[in-house]
Amino acid sequence: MQIFEECGNTDVEGVDSTNACYGGTAALFNCVNWVESSCWDGRYGLVVCTDSAVYAEGPARPTGGAAAIAMLIGPNAPISLESKYRGTHMSHVYDFYKPNLASEYPVVDGKLSQTCYLMALDSCYNRFCSKFEKFEGRMFSIVEADYFVFHSPYNKLVQKSFARLYFNDFKRNCSFIGKEARDKLEPFSTLSGDESYQSRDLEKASQMVAKHLYDKKVQPSTLLPKQVGNMYTASLYAAFASVIHKKHNILDGQRVVMFSYGSGLTSTMFSFKLNDGQHPFSLSNIANVLDIPRKLESRYEVSPEKFVETLKLMEHRYGAKDFLTSKDTALLSPGTFYLTHVDSMYRRYYARKVDDGAVGCANGPQVNGH
Amino acid sequence: MQIFEECGNTDVEGVDSTNACYGGTAALFNCVNWVESSCWDGRYGLVVCTDSAVYAEGPARPTGGAAAIAMLIGPNAPISLESKYRGTHMSHVYDFYKPNLASEYPVVDGKLSQTCYLMALDSCYNRFCSKFEKFEGRMFSIVEADYFVFHSPYNKLVQKSFARLYFNDFKRNCSFIGKEARDKLEPFSTLSGDESYQSRDLEKASQMVAKHLYDKKVQPSTLLPKQVGNMYTASLYAAFASVIHKKHNILDGQRVVMFSYGSGLTSTMFSFKLNDGQHPFSLSNIANVLDIPRKLESRYEVSPEKFVETLKLMEHRYGAKDFLTSKDTALLSPGTFYLTHVDSMYRRYYARKVDDGAVGCANGPQVNGH
Repeated sequence: MQIFEECGNTDVEGVDSTNACYGGTAALFNCVNWVESSCWDGRYGLVVCTDSAVYAEGPARPTGGAAAIAMLIGPNAPISLESKYRGTHMSHVYDFYKPNLASEYPVVDGKLSQTCYLMALDSCYNRFCSKFEKFEGRMFSIVEADYFVFHSPYNKLVQKSFARLYFNDFKRNCSFIGKEARDKLEPFSTLSGDESYQSRDLEKASQMVAKHLYDKKVQPSTLLPKQVGNMYTASLYAAFASVIHKKHNILDGQRVVMFSYGSGLTSTMFSFKLNDGQHPFSLSNIANVLDIPRKLESRYEVSPEKFVETLKLMEHRYGAKDFLTSKDTALLSPGTFYLTHVDSMYRRYYARKVDDGAVGCANGPQVNGH
Repeated sequence: MQIFEECGNTDVEGVDSTNACYGGTAALFNCVNWVESSCWDGRYGLVVCTDSAVYAEGPARPTGGAAAIAMLIGPNAPISLESKYRGTHMSHVYDFYKPNLASEYPVVDGKLSQTCYLMALDSCYNRFCSKFEKFEGRMFSIVEADYFVFHSPYNKLVQKSFARLYFNDFKRNCSFIGKEARDKLEPFSTLSGDESYQSRDLEKASQMVAKHLYDKKVQPSTLLPKQVGNMYTASLYAAFASVIHKKHNILDGQRVVMFSYGSGLTSTMFSFKLNDGQHPFSLSNIANVLDIPRKLESRYEVSPEKFVETLKLMEHRYGAKDFLTSKDTALLSPGTFYLTHVDSMYRRYYARKVDDGAVGCANGPQVNGH
């Protein structure tokens, strides 16, 4: 908010939308609804999804990551919601949660979380399909979309998810599935829902028959999630950014189906329709501004020991007061805002690393008081 | 969410909107925008604002309270937003906040918080007025609205707030202010903004000249805030419910101006236009369902010692695991959901007190597992 205030703009609406990895999707929907509502005043909306995914010591720790994705929302966008086809599934479960308020680390029931994810995927897909069919008068199947983008805590789950949609289409008797694939999936057609979530054989068989479509429709979204690790609420949109980066020159007229999942649980399947757009809001310029190759290349490698040491410092400072942060900003990109100080009243102070290319109100390094 | 699931409905959209006492207003705006958006599917929206306002030992403790307000959102409502006149002011301040994650108690800078509130009120009012004037082609002043409802942490601030709007109208040269009032306020017309927030004499003078309008336009909203104490995010809507309760038979065609404030800070002034509506969504039936007199009468008085003891237990259990709550539900109203158990994994279990008049899916007492 300080950045807006410094520019003299305090007339900004909207507050945090909080719900695990689904928060960014909720904020996106809220912001798009605002633009479509009678109270919209013609200004752009801004959605920021950001999280750091950190885990206590153990097997999940190396899957962590961190990211922030910002989205500018307005009319006549090159990326637009197909608002009528949305399929949502919400349920009260304890699959992944943060009950210990003094710790940033989650309590995770990995097996339950994966089953919840796949059940939510099934439910959202069924709703998405039936809404599509109601409005379009024909069946939906995975061939109707050019890309599928999933919330991506780890890539194996993304592979399972797409195979699961394929299996759904098989059970729905979709005509694109040939005899060979049908024969491979037939043995699993009588499994109960719960059995089907647990069956390794089904997992293997469906991934195999879906492989050629996965490579075409899903693989382009996996770049950032594979490179950065889990990003919680930014994960889905980082995966989508990967598609823009890889395919921006052939996305005109294409449909991208998105699956957002937040533990707890909240989930929605929705779709984007894309068009080339006009500069500066063209897909090619968005890809240009994203500049993913440079960002990936500019990463700095630290040893696992150094990473563990950094997390120890984070644990120590989580919710703490009265400390100064390191003055060494060598590893920050120019323009980065960073925490300098938390005072005895827990008030937080930030500075910004000098960025010669900065635009707007900022003049060199800023210190934002409270 | 469990209540919806038990009824077979998991297709529910929307997540928590979190921002101190402003959260409920953010949720209301999000929900109304949803109904106005292209993705709305014809169902009602539901906004629940709830908080318990508790303070550490000290002078603020007796101002605490607790409440929940639920609002049903849909088209053709008897209470509708005048969406074009909204005035918002956001700023980054540490006036009231909860930095200690292990405690439910806030850190409060009372003097700063009051000044922030009044500055935000001025800013929102100016924006509200200029938007009104742009669309209506005439000046706005407090005579244009029949009622003013303020976020009400304590009644003295509500009195100051309305007097502040009157002082704003005086400075804007509004014609309804007679010579006598004008003479009383003239000595303060040259005060700087900051001086005017600190001046006790201005406070006294403006409250005096505004008194007759306060009694008419504000007093009806003060019933619940005075009786229940601070309710944080439910406070504004409990104050509005007081107006419905007291005036429902004469509200047709009237305008109610609302001022929502959340520390941190987020604030918006907006207005409702009311019409009698049609049963069951008539103002008189809403007043009937609210049944404020019975709810106030059914309160149970405890001694300050017992209250302090209860807060000690709350402190002890805040963020805790592995405990059972009291089995004594004698003081709960029939139909109330209550916490029974937090297990060793911090999972929470609820039951519902038997309510012979309950409708819907519930059959007697329920235990909602995770």
